[in-house]
Parts: sequence; C-alpha cells; structure tokens
Amino acid sequence: MLLHGYFRSSASYRVRIALNLKGLGATQMTHHLRKGEQRAEAYLALNPQGLVPTLETDDGGLLTQSLAIIDWLEELKPSPALLPSDPWSKMRVKAFALTIACDIHPVQNLKVLARLRQLGLPETEVQAWAATVNRDGLAACAALIAGEAGPFCFGDKPTLADICLVPQLANARRFGVEVQAFPRLIAAEQVCAALAAFRDAAPERQPDAE
Amino acid sequence: MLLHGYFRSSASYRVRIALNLKGLGATQMTHHLRKGEQRAEAYLALNPQGLVPTLETDDGGLLTQSLAIIDWLEELKPSPALLPSDPWSKMRVKAFALTIACDIHPVQNLKVLARLRQLGLPETEVQAWAATVNRDGLAACAALIAGEAGPFCFGDKPTLADICLVPQLANARRFGVEVQAFPRLIAAEQVCAALAAFRDAAPERQPDAE
Repeated sequence: MLLHGYFRSSASYRVRIALNLKGLGATQMTHHLRKGEQRAEAYLALNPQGLVPTLETDDGGLLTQSLAIIDWLEELKPSPALLPSDPWSKMRVKAFALTIACDIHPVQNLKVLARLRQLGLPETEVQAWAATVNRDGLAACAALIAGEAGPFCFGDKPTLADICLVPQLANARRFGVEVQAFPRLIAAEQVCAALAAFRDAAPERQPDAE
Repeated sequence: MLLHGYFRSSASYRVRIALNLKGLGATQMTHHLRKGEQRAEAYLALNPQGLVPTLETDDGGLLTQSLAIIDWLEELKPSPALLPSDPWSKMRVKAFALTIACDIHPVQNLKVLARLRQLGLPETEVQAWAATVNRDGLAACAALIAGEAGPFCFGDKPTLADICLVPQLANARRFGVEVQAFPRLIAAEQVCAALAAFRDAAPERQPDAE
C-alpha cells in the first residue's frame, strides 16, 4: 500500500497511527502542502479534493478521507479492533471522532486559514480563529467522554477516538490553546504516548519532517 | 426515538432521510438555530457541541453527529442497507459522504458564516466564501463518482452518499452555486426526488418549517 500524505497533516497522522496499531505497513509518499504539491494535476487525478491523505492499494485502488481509510483498514485487518464491538459504544466513539474530523479539523486547516488571510484578516485574527475552533471543539470532546471510563478516551484500549484526538491536540497546542484545561483529554493523550504505534506516527518522526 | 433537529439543518435533513428510508419513526423536537436555541443550557446537556441533530433513544441514550446516528440506524435496522456490502464499495461511499460532511458542510455552516460576519467581512464576501466551499466540494464529489454506475451516486440504490448529497445541493443553491455544472450529481438528486423518503425529509415539509 502507498499512503500519500504529509508529515504535518493531522488527517495523515490519524492514518499513520491506525496503520501502526494494526501492524500494517505502507510506503509513504509526501506531498508538500505549503508548496501546494497537493494541487498538482497528477495528484488531483488520485484525490480530486487535493487533500491528503489518499491510500493507494497494490492493485491501484484509491481511497480518500482519513476516516474512510481507517474503516477500510479495520475491515482489512479486524484485530486489534479500533472500535468497540458493542454497537452503541461504537457509535459513541464514531461521534467523538466525527466531532474532531468534521467540526474542528476542517474549520482550522491550512486551506481555510489561507482563505482568511486572502480576505485581508490580520494574522492575530487568523490565529485566534484557529484557537477558538480548537478550544470549543475540544471542550465538546471532553464533555462527550466525561462519563466514560479511561484511561483512553473510551475504556482501556485505544480507539478511533484517540486516533483523532492525539493529532488534534498537537494542532491545538500549535495555535496556543491551553490544552491542560482538558485534563481528561490530556490523560488519554498520555497513555497513547506510551504506545509505539502513536509515537512512531508523530509528525517529527516522519521521513518528510522538516 | 426523539430527533432533536431543525428543519433547515442539513445534518438533521440527512438523518430524516435515513429514518424514512429505514421506515423508522422518530418524534421531532425543533431547536431554532437562528434564535440560538441550540446553545440553551438544557440542550448543551444533550449535545455539548450545541449542534443539531441529536438522537435521543427511548431509554435516554444520546447520540450526536449525523453520520454516527445514521451508522447506528444501519445497525438497528440493517435493511434496506444504506451502504454497499462489498467493503471497498462501502468505503468509497463513506469517503464521498465524508467529503461533504467534513469538507463542505462545516466550512459553510451558520456558525462559520456568523464568525466571518463578526470579523467584519461584508455580506458579499461571506456569501462568496460559502459558494466557493460548495462549488469546490461538489466538483470533487462529481469527480469521485465519475466512474460509478448511476442513477444514484453509487449504483441503483440510494446510499449514504445520496443522503449527504441531496441536502448539500439544497445549500449550494441557496448560496447561488450553479449546480447544473454537475450533471451527474443533479441526475442522482432527481432519482432521489422520486422517492417519498427523500421528499418527506425536505426542510419545507417539516413541522417547524417557516
């Protein structure tokens, strides 16, 4: 498998964690987002959104959207499971993941921030936008798992929720959010950090890290 | 079941279509988004994001995020299926749905547009922002299904892809996007419109429609 990504893309980071947790290997091909390489014609033929990641299978199949890719990995290799088997718990994990994947990440990604700058907003306002989106979203995430047993987001194993949380916390810090305001989230992040699958997926450990 | 929603919310609209396709009933409770009712303390206790929809089960279980709710309905009543059974096709449908649910809808929702206005952007820029997000996103959606058999987005039955597409096309029109530029998407919308499950879920047919 070939994973088209970028070291600092949090959606790529999610897929890297999932691959590691599953013990699946994938060759990485980098597309430098700040240089706009994801908008090259050859890449748009793989991913018409011009976003990373894209998973390319050995027979040339193309799959976009990190959560769809992770669901595919879950079907490809069900164990270790990234979702609880109980349907209700599974959906609660998915709702947590979608809170990050729909309502935090895309509203503070490179593309949106670039558009804000183009509209003439000063850099302080752009950074404040990203910080607010992260802070509000993480507060909702913390509330969603307030009644859940730890130490991970949902119980004693890492799930899709943790896979989405860890990269988002990294983003939040980059925008200056005081993430220690969310002790339950930080506790989950800490148990994840004890796992090689999470550590090895970190942006700074990728071959294209700058 | 109780569906907390709002007639014009496209995420609520998705869940209404799914309920209808499954032949599942749910009482609707409206939360007027423009009046900010979704930020009332009592509602935040149900949905810490302050977003609609929220599904409340008869035993008081709470589920947020439209795609998680629809996945739950799929487990609750597998037939008719909203996803293909073949894993690869299933993930392609999910990727299409996530393209809308992550990268179009949240970047042009009421909350984001309100934030843009607060930052002092003139209304023409706000509308142009929403139109661009819809146009670019729908172009990617059209490309994602260019090789798929119709008449629905994926084959001869409505799937989660159509459930996400139909409400998004309604949004796109509201922002003045020339949606006829995407004939394949419009063709899928037309076969959906022939089904009562889609028609009955339309905003203008809801009890809280204005």
